Amino acid sequence: MHRILSTQLQAHTGRTVRLAGWVHRRRLLKSVAFLILRDRTGLAQIVVPQGKQLPPEETVIEVTGTVVANPVAPGGAEIVEPTVTALAEPAAPLPFDLYRPELTAALPVQLDHAPLALRHPQRRNAFRLSAEVVAGFRRTLDGLGFTEIHTPKVVGSATESGANVFALDYFGRPAYLAQSPQFYKQMMVGVFERVYEVGPAFRAEPHDTGRHLAQYTSLDAELGFITDHRDVMAVVREAVAAMSTVDVPEEIPAIHFADALALMGADPGEPDLAPAHERWLGEWVRREHGSEFLFVTGYPMVKRPFYTYPQPDRPAYSNSFDLLFRGLEVATGGQRLHRHGDYVAALAARGERVDESYLETFRYGIPPHGGFAIGLERFVARLVGAANVRQTTLFPRDRRRLTP
Amino acid sequence: MHRILSTQLQAHTGRTVRLAGWVHRRRLLKSVAFLILRDRTGLAQIVVPQGKQLPPEETVIEVTGTVVANPVAPGGAEIVEPTVTALAEPAAPLPFDLYRPELTAALPVQLDHAPLALRHPQRRNAFRLSAEVVAGFRRTLDGLGFTEIHTPKVVGSATESGANVFALDYFGRPAYLAQSPQFYKQMMVGVFERVYEVGPAFRAEPHDTGRHLAQYTSLDAELGFITDHRDVMAVVREAVAAMSTVDVPEEIPAIHFADALALMGADPGEPDLAPAHERWLGEWVRREHGSEFLFVTGYPMVKRPFYTYPQPDRPAYSNSFDLLFRGLEVATGGQRLHRHGDYVAALAARGERVDESYLETFRYGIPPHGGFAIGLERFVARLVGAANVRQTTLFPRDRRRLTP
Repeated sequence: MHRILSTQLQAHTGRTVRLAGWVHRRRLLKSVAFLILRDRTGLAQIVVPQGKQLPPEETVIEVTGTVVANPVAPGGAEIVEPTVTALAEPAAPLPFDLYRPELTAALPVQLDHAPLALRHPQRRNAFRLSAEVVAGFRRTLDGLGFTEIHTPKVVGSATESGANVFALDYFGRPAYLAQSPQFYKQMMVGVFERVYEVGPAFRAEPHDTGRHLAQYTSLDAELGFITDHRDVMAVVREAVAAMSTVDVPEEIPAIHFADALALMGADPGEPDLAPAHERWLGEWVRREHGSEFLFVTGYPMVKRPFYTYPQPDRPAYSNSFDLLFRGLEVATGGQRLHRHGDYVAALAARGERVDESYLETFRYGIPPHGGFAIGLERFVARLVGAANVRQTTLFPRDRRRLTP
Repeated sequence: MHRILSTQLQAHTGRTVRLAGWVHRRRLLKSVAFLILRDRTGLAQIVVPQGKQLPPEETVIEVTGTVVANPVAPGGAEIVEPTVTALAEPAAPLPFDLYRPELTAALPVQLDHAPLALRHPQRRNAFRLSAEVVAGFRRTLDGLGFTEIHTPKVVGSATESGANVFALDYFGRPAYLAQSPQFYKQMMVGVFERVYEVGPAFRAEPHDTGRHLAQYTSLDAELGFITDHRDVMAVVREAVAAMSTVDVPEEIPAIHFADALALMGADPGEPDLAPAHERWLGEWVRREHGSEFLFVTGYPMVKRPFYTYPQPDRPAYSNSFDLLFRGLEVATGGQRLHRHGDYVAALAARGERVDESYLETFRYGIPPHGGFAIGLERFVARLVGAANVRQTTLFPRDRRRLTP
């Protein structure tokens, strides 16, 4: 007999069916017992005659039986006269219950037991949402003529400043884990004009915060033949609108960094926004513009990497932006330098060095271009209201956590 | 004026348009000169009056002009009376020509100059195909109820036997680059039943072959509630059929490992297939079954990892398979052990150890399951007839190559 899923139960009322899944919960009432079966789509109620032995929670079972309508059962139907077969039995009692509406175990305990904790419907749902977010990102960029790429995660020199980089023994020589695909996506503008990548990025983040991890999933894009950073922001807007069901304005409000500081009465010499600033701006844009999103543009050059394009009329600022979502930075981007001579000058002025093969890209002609990166786990954390990005990362990596 | 793409030229015949791209080639004839412009979609011919200075190859240009029909021009139309503006000029002569039908530079030279070599239409096309291959993989699995996941690439212990693993300094303790998402996708069977991941896999491959790299893109899937490995093979067949335009039989021919050895007259004690065996079988299946694909099933347990499910009626063999495509292994998979006790016994018998958090997965109930992995670059190499997997990897990593 073909297996059906719990969400298909009601459509099979009156028929004999086969379900498979996990024992989510046993409920022993006075005259009857219920098994609640969990499969990948939801829950199903199995009515078990009194006196039968009930398999413990997380036993993998197959159930055949007759579907009858029951408006108070999950999905409006339940299984009666079941035959229950165990496919795999748990080898130990569970460290915490999965059947309550919320997991009561503390987050570190959940993370220690991730293979179990992630089975909880609420935790699981965040990662199904995460998959939909990524699908929305790709669908948007595919529709705009972007090509997906896969770039090296082991590199010969640190992508950005060299801070917080993981070092590696690469056949006896030093190598590093890529902090971003930045250089590669710029190289690929010369090939496909418009590229994106969904992949891991690595930061040896020394701080223990709810916003940073040693590995995260970066949604990266880069496009050529732009006028300036506003063409990039238009793509970000399209992507973000497809990445959630949150209302995204046709044009996301934008405020220049200098104007944002002035609005908050902050020191005009501040080189960056503090988390408190971002929260303040998140409240402000919701109140004043009814938007959950805000672009902050024109960040000072001093806090942006060497490849950043300066703002032509105010060269201490840059053609860059961050996207705030509910008061937290979830995306960063901007226009990049594109002339070989500008790279040589910018690196000399900062006393920085990069691999020659990166500079070769610009030696052979690259159009005005820009791009952006969205941190997947952070974006999803904002969507589901999770305070800690570890709640939206399947198996988080931080200074202390290397397993599971 | 809105930019149009080279492939849209003919549809704009008689109109004034703007194109943008790279100078692919200059052609100076007796009475006229042509600029061939390359953009992300193709080539366009620009007719330049005699005596005008022509910008050198790889200059980034914008061109406005009038479209006229010309059946011998690329796309059946060309631009006349052009205004050509340079957006970025090359800073050095090219190390090799891009305009010939094939790149004549040797592969190592191409790889040294990858940002330039990848612009060649033939090389570029392989990576556009690669993006379509991945899209086909995802589309198939999405349609079959799989959920996409993102798992750690930095792990506390080596995934497989510990050979060929890259070691890392992780905040002062040893860590390793993941050789596959195997353990994590099995853990996630307990959460979503069916999962897939597209991501980097790392092998410190000491050999210099055309088939192996230190980083490759692994298309991984795992599914629960299977009967045996044949349910996994059915999913592989669906995926592969969507990953190319090559004809894939409704049912891909399958031959047991022992029967394959017998067919070739090989030593029945051979524990694995040599590349020459795979080529022989590729020829055989094409000749006998008219198929480019062949499943070889039942590989000896001795050559398969500890989590492999033995063949119930011949326990020296396994419920596993490789998929050969044109005589080369491009996918590997099979059924896995699912009972906690079987894991404990298998590890003890082999004297291997794994992280406790992996075993916890099976302690709490995992259904019969299996999965597979397809090497993207190797699959695409077979599709385009490339002899070396470096031709279908944007920026290959091997024992000697760490840049670009």
